[in-house]
Amino acid sequence: MGNTFGHLFRITTWGESHGGAVGVVLDGCPPRLKLTEADIQPDLDRRRPGQSRIVTQRKETDTVKIFSGTFEGRTLGTPILMFVPNEDQRSEAYSEMATKFRPSHADFTYQAKYGIRAWPGGGRTSARETVGRVAAGAVAKKLLREQFGVEVLAYVTQVERVIAEVDREKVRFKDIESNIIRCPDQAAAERMIGVIDRVRKDGDSVGGIIEGVVRGVPVGWGEPVFDRLEADLAKAMLSLPATKGFDIGSGFDAVTMRGSEHNDIFRMKGGRVRTLTNRSGGIQGGISNGETIYFRVAFKPTATILQEQDTVSAEGRNVKLKARGRHDPCVLPRAVPLVESMTALVLADHALRHRAQCGK
Amino acid sequence: MGNTFGHLFRITTWGESHGGAVGVVLDGCPPRLKLTEADIQPDLDRRRPGQSRIVTQRKETDTVKIFSGTFEGRTLGTPILMFVPNEDQRSEAYSEMATKFRPSHADFTYQAKYGIRAWPGGGRTSARETVGRVAAGAVAKKLLREQFGVEVLAYVTQVERVIAEVDREKVRFKDIESNIIRCPDQAAAERMIGVIDRVRKDGDSVGGIIEGVVRGVPVGWGEPVFDRLEADLAKAMLSLPATKGFDIGSGFDAVTMRGSEHNDIFRMKGGRVRTLTNRSGGIQGGISNGETIYFRVAFKPTATILQEQDTVSAEGRNVKLKARGRHDPCVLPRAVPLVESMTALVLADHALRHRAQCGK
Amino acid sequence: MGNTFGHLFRITTWGESHGGAVGVVLDGCPPRLKLTEADIQPDLDRRRPGQSRIVTQRKETDTVKIFSGTFEGRTLGTPILMFVPNEDQRSEAYSEMATKFRPSHADFTYQAKYGIRAWPGGGRTSARETVGRVAAGAVAKKLLREQFGVEVLAYVTQVERVIAEVDREKVRFKDIESNIIRCPDQAAAERMIGVIDRVRKDGDSVGGIIEGVVRGVPVGWGEPVFDRLEADLAKAMLSLPATKGFDIGSGFDAVTMRGSEHNDIFRMKGGRVRTLTNRSGGIQGGISNGETIYFRVAFKPTATILQEQDTVSAEGRNVKLKARGRHDPCVLPRAVPLVESMTALVLADHALRHRAQCGK
Amino acid sequence: MGNTFGHLFRITTWGESHGGAVGVVLDGCPPRLKLTEADIQPDLDRRRPGQSRIVTQRKETDTVKIFSGTFEGRTLGTPILMFVPNEDQRSEAYSEMATKFRPSHADFTYQAKYGIRAWPGGGRTSARETVGRVAAGAVAKKLLREQFGVEVLAYVTQVERVIAEVDREKVRFKDIESNIIRCPDQAAAERMIGVIDRVRKDGDSVGGIIEGVVRGVPVGWGEPVFDRLEADLAKAMLSLPATKGFDIGSGFDAVTMRGSEHNDIFRMKGGRVRTLTNRSGGIQGGISNGETIYFRVAFKPTATILQEQDTVSAEGRNVKLKARGRHDPCVLPRAVPLVESMTALVLADHALRHRAQCGK
Repeated sequence: MGNTFGHLFRITTWGESHGGAVGVVLDGCPPRLKLTEADIQPDLDRRRPGQSRIVTQRKETDTVKIFSGTFEGRTLGTPILMFVPNEDQRSEAYSEMATKFRPSHADFTYQAKYGIRAWPGGGRTSARETVGRVAAGAVAKKLLREQFGVEVLAYVTQVERVIAEVDREKVRFKDIESNIIRCPDQAAAERMIGVIDRVRKDGDSVGGIIEGVVRGVPVGWGEPVFDRLEADLAKAMLSLPATKGFDIGSGFDAVTMRGSEHNDIFRMKGGRVRTLTNRSGGIQGGISNGETIYFRVAFKPTATILQEQDTVSAEGRNVKLKARGRHDPCVLPRAVPLVESMTALVLADHALRHRAQCGK
Repeated sequence: MGNTFGHLFRITTWGESHGGAVGVVLDGCPPRLKLTEADIQPDLDRRRPGQSRIVTQRKETDTVKIFSGTFEGRTLGTPILMFVPNEDQRSEAYSEMATKFRPSHADFTYQAKYGIRAWPGGGRTSARETVGRVAAGAVAKKLLREQFGVEVLAYVTQVERVIAEVDREKVRFKDIESNIIRCPDQAAAERMIGVIDRVRKDGDSVGGIIEGVVRGVPVGWGEPVFDRLEADLAKAMLSLPATKGFDIGSGFDAVTMRGSEHNDIFRMKGGRVRTLTNRSGGIQGGISNGETIYFRVAFKPTATILQEQDTVSAEGRNVKLKARGRHDPCVLPRAVPLVESMTALVLADHALRHRAQCGK
Repeated sequence: MGNTFGHLFRITTWGESHGGAVGVVLDGCPPRLKLTEADIQPDLDRRRPGQSRIVTQRKETDTVKIFSGTFEGRTLGTPILMFVPNEDQRSEAYSEMATKFRPSHADFTYQAKYGIRAWPGGGRTSARETVGRVAAGAVAKKLLREQFGVEVLAYVTQVERVIAEVDREKVRFKDIESNIIRCPDQAAAERMIGVIDRVRKDGDSVGGIIEGVVRGVPVGWGEPVFDRLEADLAKAMLSLPATKGFDIGSGFDAVTMRGSEHNDIFRMKGGRVRTLTNRSGGIQGGISNGETIYFRVAFKPTATILQEQDTVSAEGRNVKLKARGRHDPCVLPRAVPLVESMTALVLADHALRHRAQCGK
Repeated sequence: MGNTFGHLFRITTWGESHGGAVGVVLDGCPPRLKLTEADIQPDLDRRRPGQSRIVTQRKETDTVKIFSGTFEGRTLGTPILMFVPNEDQRSEAYSEMATKFRPSHADFTYQAKYGIRAWPGGGRTSARETVGRVAAGAVAKKLLREQFGVEVLAYVTQVERVIAEVDREKVRFKDIESNIIRCPDQAAAERMIGVIDRVRKDGDSVGGIIEGVVRGVPVGWGEPVFDRLEADLAKAMLSLPATKGFDIGSGFDAVTMRGSEHNDIFRMKGGRVRTLTNRSGGIQGGISNGETIYFRVAFKPTATILQEQDTVSAEGRNVKLKARGRHDPCVLPRAVPLVESMTALVLADHALRHRAQCGK
């Protein structure tokens, strides 16, 4: 249980690192959407290890194949199976993981919960699981863009103490993709890359913040009271590996504001109801209000580091562990397409839910 | 849609402010749990308006009645209907709301989504909806305590810029309940109350932070990959009115840490696998690791203030609006039982889900 | 678990016989549908005990009250709580049920499953549970009629060996309601009533068949592969008390036919694709084809009879049991609105599901 | 939507005939169950075309591969992807299907619903979809057998007018598998095969009945009120292609019985509560009572026949259609493992649901 996300636009991911393959089945996609592997592969390439010097150097081409749900280049309305074979399976690099629990990894909790775990490469706890999310997210993004005029973006705004300045109303995809950290503030990007380079040489890792932005959402998406748009976004983000926090609009900064400063004043503008400020983050009462949706996601430094650490073994003894080989000094550049994907999945689901009940 | 929470321990809340009643139906509760209204009423009293001078003075006794699902003081395993009649229905106080959208409220988005809304008292967008959550949460807390040895607590740690110091391993329910702001740090509590008193006189409002704590959770609860314990907690918290953010364990502070400082080292202790630190917040890979679970929830200042504000009318004109009568200068003391309740609902659901698949 | 039906137009029933009340919460109803208690009460009156001499003489007025989800006579799009107080609670008539398991009732299985049961009146196993279904079904029927032009009917076609002849394309509601057995073939109806009168005097009971008919369903409703329209109808019908079978279109008669006789030939008619025969029962591949949907539901004779029977006691001894007081010699006339209701709930749900994915 | 079955032991099938592959993802399987392809392949071989002269001669080896969810021959508790490549893809044999709707097939309804369809081989409407069900059903059967002591069987009891006599308490798997029609009454089996041989030569098809039997179910499985065991079985069976009816226990025969004959009398036997007769079919009030569960499923004659038929074209003209090549004169022998599989999926799901709420 727990491997399914969404109600109407619904995905189930499957696959372990070092198993035969990873992927996703997507059910509920509207029919007749143009779709081939070429729509999906670019996002997988953005998630892929080895794409630059600042991410893990693990070798995977992550080539996706669609095995069902399309015909002559269009969706059928039936389940879409997207399948990515596993390639770089050097289990020996992980042999210590068979008997020692990596600190702040899920080795121990999986073992305790299930009484078994696929230790090579971390099995189901590996970031490879997110391949399926990105593949399905690419479909969601296309659906949102083509049928609803909605654009989903994400970018890095903070690495350790380096903070970027970004105009979320104007930022463009190509600005984000113009550097290897995926931060549209080019000056900050350079400093971020510098931080990561240093950390990498230490065999250590750093955390940071990714901001998600959605533009063009019509008024009315979101289902009160539990399936509020921000609640589903929060769940989506906290379901990503290495995330520790989420806030939307004014977020944690709202804590020190008065109601009189925080409230977004309504004004008529171009015949539409608009707000002068957007501290609500585009959502009020769980429902989109037509303004830009934006939120932040906090990522911890990745747990795998190339330094010796204390830990315990599967037999319950205190031992030492030193990871060997490759590590990911900063998960953020590869997490950007993940944040986009989960965001798109939430919004596509809500687009269909709104249409179901309200008929538009 | 959207009014149901949980998979196996599952609630559906219903009711509008100024409708006939509000409440909840709870399905999936294990049979033979001792349960009467006396188990639920105290939490409703903690959520109730008018409980102290620093919350809204609206008058509601919020008396709950169980109409189904129990027999001779025990649960039957069948749906439990908990029902609270509405009382203080002074619609006239809200008559302007019929035609003007309150800033940063959900009036506009509900009207746009549904083409209709129950404007008296805010209808479904009123905090009265949370009565049902608290009633069901009281059952969840009892189940967790009696059948699983799990304790759920919540308390205020910040009001505007006043920050409390709390030892989350030792804090007791009676410390929290010893003052009207529900902050176990008594010195901070006094200053928080001072802030709220001043804000109240200005007809303004303030935000703050509530921390949730869960002690005694066994290793193994939580369903990877989407229904991670922290993901479900994040959704639960962001589904509460006025919340803008959530973080768990090290949270947003993780952003500036290195992996080598952030990782929780495993050590054997008393025959059990423990961690020396708890930056993970009691959850690793989405599954509880046996340490204390803790997280923070950011609340914005409540939107209703007693100052004149610009807004638009239902007919699309720029107008002025001045709320009359009562307002809630700080939602935090009444939100504490809400955070507890949603936390308990998440954990009770996961207790049953774990038992279903793993048999324990 | 198990008390919820439907995905988008979704109900949860609650309540035990001899508890405080019974009812239903309906979530997902489209907004702005005109709805008051007057739309619901007539169907409850058709389900009510004591409506004629051939049904149980238990006294219940079954007066429904809507406590949420409507405003000024229209639905809000929020959950609708429909509530019916329990009245005729003569627990003493059931006192033997506290210690003896009634043959072919659910007393034993509930006790074994839950370790507790509300024995007065049968508790949750009582037909009173169906009050909530009928209330929600009335809303579903109204929605289908007003927004989709779909008409749902049901009628008795067989009581024991008396078989009616009914033209399902032409039968009208008022023909069905013109007699107390709810069979539109008036001659058969009289004979059916005669059978029931005799059985009633013996303190015995009889079974029969109800046919459900749905006219005006557009082409395209139904979700392959598991949520086929006929699969959801089958589940809906077998979830009703006392049902033992379901078939659709040609049904069990298809067993002895050849493909060459059974196939429904397509022909163009009035610019639409129609079938010359309708052995498919209006559904092909799980999806409505625009023809009339019809199906049969088999009901066993009700288990409660006024004759002495052997059984066992809660303590595990072989004993005798003789029900006292009132019994229902034939459940069929009261089950007609139940079949209608469940049918309408299935179709309303599929109407919304189709709109969600296919946008129409 | 609609491609998922089950709540806790949950499958999603995917794949079209003539697409790349067909299969299933199974989520919620308990961990540590021994499982390899060798547990699944035998059931796929029983479902496979070309297994005998009385079924379709289409050539498919249907070789399954598990791509996730197991490690060192045991289940991990993570999603299990089972994958079967498509092989016999002679689209040209189906070219007329691109433009003509086959009578009593789903060609028309899919085209109308989705505005697109994969016509080669029938796409998603092909019986190939059931490959995934059988693969998952094999896992369910193994789980039920090894962890719960439950045995699931199915066999043919009627082909056209030939009716078998079977003792459902004693029938063994090897009796069923001893002939190509899968009827344990060997004399009836021969006559059934004779009927099918004749029909096959005519290019026609016949229907029949399959009975499902489940032995060893403990008392207490099944979730009232909507997810009764018989309701979920009814849905499961009516979700199979070519099914037109379902009944359980006394079924449609109950219609002509009196309560005094129909009731199953309880008696103590071997320290357990048993029933003297089993007209309830092992389920009372939706919950298993410990007796053998049995039910019947009616299959229509398959729609594809090798005779010329009238129909309409995609452009809306009246045309003639004559299927070429291979057809399935009787779907029953291949449907036996399907009935078993769906039955096992229902029971495995309920086993886990019961454990979740009732803790055993």
